[in-house]
Amino acid sequence: MPELHNLFADLPSSPREEEGFQELLARPGLRIERIVSTGQASPPDFWYDQPGGEWVLLLQGEAGLALEGEAGIRHLVPGDFLHLPPHLRHRVAWTAAGQVTVWLAIHYDETCPPP
Amino acid sequence: MPELHNLFADLPSSPREEEGFQELLARPGLRIERIVSTGQASPPDFWYDQPGGEWVLLLQGEAGLALEGEAGIRHLVPGDFLHLPPHLRHRVAWTAAGQVTVWLAIHYDETCPPP
Repeated sequence: MPELHNLFADLPSSPREEEGFQELLARPGLRIERIVSTGQASPPDFWYDQPGGEWVLLLQGEAGLALEGEAGIRHLVPGDFLHLPPHLRHRVAWTAAGQVTVWLAIHYDETCPPP
Repeated sequence: MPELHNLFADLPSSPREEEGFQELLARPGLRIERIVSTGQASPPDFWYDQPGGEWVLLLQGEAGLALEGEAGIRHLVPGDFLHLPPHLRHRVAWTAAGQVTVWLAIHYDETCPPP
């Protein structure tokens, strides 16, 4: 039978050197992931450029997200979500220092043709 | 450019007669949905029996979930998630009265063969 887990379990009690990535579900064309940040940001001039789409939800903490072609930084607070289509280049400008930021990311690909 | 929305926006301030279902993203083989409950339960003897899988996360409120073949009712609190494989029959035994319960459901199908 399916196991019940909690998304806010096992969070670090102090800042970690690296972000934590935890796969929660993997199926063909679908990956659900928890990301835990403690002040990290994407490296300068690094942009994620993903062949698949990503739907991302911030659940705890705060973060700044930069999207290529946009002047400002999006400020994400708990409950905020957005859809990043394939190849929309983006980077994490900042995550809150002194807080644990928890993200849920749904990665999908569209290699499967619609029925 | 992608729009930023908040999962906790536009919640009802008083109990509604029916649950609210809001599609947040739809792609081939993937559907992300917000469900808002205010005390509802599945009808007696009704079981969801879905051809696709569902990954479900409770984010606010409380609920009881029954899975076929299991004696007890799972008590879900914020952050709790579980994976319901295709055709695992389940029903919502209860949702908290006097609270707004918010679920995130990721529905997927596996009609697309693994690469």
